[in-house]
Amino acid sequence: MTVSLSAELWPDVQPEAARRLMLAGVESFARRGYHATTTRDIAGGAGMSPAALYVHFPSKAALLFAISKSGHEQTLALVENVVARKAGPAETIRELTQDFVAWHARRHTVARVVQYELQALPEKELAVVAELRRRIEQTVRDVIGQGIADGVFTVPDPWTAARAVLSLGVDVARWYTDRTRQSPAALGRDYGELVLRMLGAG
Amino acid sequence: MTVSLSAELWPDVQPEAARRLMLAGVESFARRGYHATTTRDIAGGAGMSPAALYVHFPSKAALLFAISKSGHEQTLALVENVVARKAGPAETIRELTQDFVAWHARRHTVARVVQYELQALPEKELAVVAELRRRIEQTVRDVIGQGIADGVFTVPDPWTAARAVLSLGVDVARWYTDRTRQSPAALGRDYGELVLRMLGAG
Repeated sequence: MTVSLSAELWPDVQPEAARRLMLAGVESFARRGYHATTTRDIAGGAGMSPAALYVHFPSKAALLFAISKSGHEQTLALVENVVARKAGPAETIRELTQDFVAWHARRHTVARVVQYELQALPEKELAVVAELRRRIEQTVRDVIGQGIADGVFTVPDPWTAARAVLSLGVDVARWYTDRTRQSPAALGRDYGELVLRMLGAG
Repeated sequence: MTVSLSAELWPDVQPEAARRLMLAGVESFARRGYHATTTRDIAGGAGMSPAALYVHFPSKAALLFAISKSGHEQTLALVENVVARKAGPAETIRELTQDFVAWHARRHTVARVVQYELQALPEKELAVVAELRRRIEQTVRDVIGQGIADGVFTVPDPWTAARAVLSLGVDVARWYTDRTRQSPAALGRDYGELVLRMLGAG
C-alpha cells in the first residue's frame, strides 16, 4: 500500500490521508466484505486511529460512497471520452469496450468494491451512484442505437446488447487477478473484437 | 422461505432441515456477506437453534461449501447435459448459453453466493470447487474448439471466447432481480443469439 498507488487511483482526492483511508477501505471490503469490516480495521490498515478516520469520513458508509462514486465517475468519464472522439459507432464501441475492460482488469480490487457493494450504500448515496450507472448504460445504448440506425450493427435490441457489453467488462473484476497472464490492454483488445462480432460488425 | 423452494433448489439434499439451513445461509450470505454472518443468524433464519445447525453442518464454512458445491455441480450437469445431446457446436453453444444464463437469472440469489464467495472457502473445499469450475470451462472450450475445427466458428482463441461466454452468464447473477422484466428463459434465448454472433456463427 503506497502513497503513489492511492494518488494514481484517486488523483482528485485530497489530502493524502483521505486517499490512504480509501485504499485501506478497498482492501478490507474486497477481502472480508463491507459488513464484516469495522472502521477500526480500516483506520488500522491506513496506519491511523479510528478518530483520525472520522476527520475525513463521517462513517464507514461515507467511505464506501467515496470509493463507489469515484469508480463510477471514472468509468463514465472513460466511456464519454471515447464517445467524444466521434469515430463512428463501430470504432467507438471497440475503443469503449477496450478501455472499460482494461479498467476493470487493472483496477480489479477497486472495481470489485465498486461493482459488488452497491447494496451496502445508504439510500441517498445509492441514488447518486444509480444515476451515474444509468448514464453509462444510456451512453453505450445510444452508440449501439446509432450503429443500428447506420446499418453498421445488426442486433435487434440495443438495450440487451448494451447490457451484455457492460456485463463482459464488469465481470472481469470478478475473475482477473494479479496472476492473470493476459495484460489488461491485451484483454481489452480481444474483448473489443468479440463485442464487434456480437453486434454484427466483426 | 418455503420448504418447496429449498426442495426445488437442492433436490438431492436430505433431510429437509439441512435444506432449510442452506436456504437461510444463502439469504444471509447474499444480504450481508459470508464474514458478517454468524451461525446464530443462519440458525435463526431457519427457525432453529445454533446447536441444531451443528447437527447438519460442522461449521459455517461447511454450510458455504455445501451451497457452493451444489451450485457448481448443477451448472456442470447443465453444461454436460447439453453437450451429451450431440447437436453440433453451434446448436450446442446456443443451448448451453441459454441454460447457463437462465440458471443464473432464475437462481440469482443462490448464484451470487456460488460465484462471489469462493475466497471464503477453506483450502481443501476450494480445491474441490475449483476442479468443478475447471471442468465447466474445459467443456465450453472443447465445444468452441470443435466449432473452430469444423469451420463453424471463426474466433482466434477458444479460451478467451469460452471465458467470455461464461462471463456473460455469471454476471447475470449480479444484476438480475425479481423485478427484471425479461424472464430467465427469454434472456437466455437473447444471449444465446449474441454468443453465436460473437463466435462467428450468428
